Amino acid sequence: MSDTLFYSPDIINNPQLPEIESHHCVKVLRMRNGDLLTVTDGKGHFYQCTLIDANPKHSTISIINKIDVKQPRNFILHVAFAPTKQMDRNEWFVEKATEIGIDRLTPIISNYSERKEIKFERLIKTAISAMKQSQQPFLPQIDETVSFNDFIKLPFKGNKYIAHCYETPKTPLTQIYKKGENALILIGPEGDFSEEEVERAINSGFSPISLGESRLRTETASLVATHTIHVINSLS
Amino acid sequence: MSDTLFYSPDIINNPQLPEIESHHCVKVLRMRNGDLLTVTDGKGHFYQCTLIDANPKHSTISIINKIDVKQPRNFILHVAFAPTKQMDRNEWFVEKATEIGIDRLTPIISNYSERKEIKFERLIKTAISAMKQSQQPFLPQIDETVSFNDFIKLPFKGNKYIAHCYETPKTPLTQIYKKGENALILIGPEGDFSEEEVERAINSGFSPISLGESRLRTETASLVATHTIHVINSLS
Repeated sequence: MSDTLFYSPDIINNPQLPEIESHHCVKVLRMRNGDLLTVTDGKGHFYQCTLIDANPKHSTISIINKIDVKQPRNFILHVAFAPTKQMDRNEWFVEKATEIGIDRLTPIISNYSERKEIKFERLIKTAISAMKQSQQPFLPQIDETVSFNDFIKLPFKGNKYIAHCYETPKTPLTQIYKKGENALILIGPEGDFSEEEVERAINSGFSPISLGESRLRTETASLVATHTIHVINSLS
Repeated sequence: MSDTLFYSPDIINNPQLPEIESHHCVKVLRMRNGDLLTVTDGKGHFYQCTLIDANPKHSTISIINKIDVKQPRNFILHVAFAPTKQMDRNEWFVEKATEIGIDRLTPIISNYSERKEIKFERLIKTAISAMKQSQQPFLPQIDETVSFNDFIKLPFKGNKYIAHCYETPKTPLTQIYKKGENALILIGPEGDFSEEEVERAINSGFSPISLGESRLRTETASLVATHTIHVINSLS
């Protein structure tokens, strides 16, 4: 059996591999009918399957066995970030956050955003390959771009934080976040959120936080926030 | 005064900007004689300077004021990593580690290393621009490539760890590392260290560690290890 993990989002209703996965399976790995493969739906399941119709565009598979995987986290982590100008920096944050473990990612557009739109499909593709590469059956939810003002109105069952660089009062994330809590963290663009946006977020229930001493790039701050939550949860 | 931070490693003995910095200063920012600029030597000092000879190849500066910056960390962090095949992944680890804060980085070559040499100068360049971008006066030490066997024999005043993916006994870094301790962490290549290398490191005083549940890429593992040490040190 190939140790490649394949992705088929709707395997139960449609036991096929999407085109990109079929191509990799048949053209790159040269798998043939009867070969065994492991597939995930990105929703917490692994499926041991047999390739029954090796087709470079839409291979058909047959499920032999389904394995339910328990979500390793007992907290929900949602990071909303203002995409950076350089697209590859957004992609690497999505890749790293998926590897480390995250539930939901939302690109937000704020006053000083240098990038007002984002190639949504590329972020999904990046998350899928990171999930496969790290051999997990959990694909984070990636949202379409939302405006800052609409986003802060959305409900969230947990603690909400906004990271900013102003001198106004804020608490380090490592001090304010407690193990096991659900967390929603807002990370601003290169030029930071506007003071008015920070104010508005605070009025919507977000606590202002800092992420340490050094001035971090947007994508570094996003990853630092993501991993800080993991470290605090893994402490005994 | 431009908010760009310039780098001049030997400013006291040679008050000039290196060629790349001179070019940025004179050609990109179009600074002129008499302009004020902030320079760091990467050794914990900021210098407020005046540009006295604006030259695109070797600008001369005059120091007005020297500011000593206290190292924000009370621990030493040294990460030795097996460089990944894709050079950009090594560069981003160096960039992110420099932003977050690290004292020393050593590329090591081990049995299963896919990359046996590394463009040393590119790593230095990456670290310098990350230091400048994050407005700090501390440039991490970046070593030339060392073989795994030579590296594990080097002395280190602190705790030594080796991260690996084998099922043999190991402790999560978040459990074994204690606030304030100096840490040297070994991160293996895509194919992991060989079991024999892990054995040899353990015999040289390295403790085997894990970095969490998910399977991480080499550069992600390196960054996760780096940031875990920071988070533990920032907890009260």
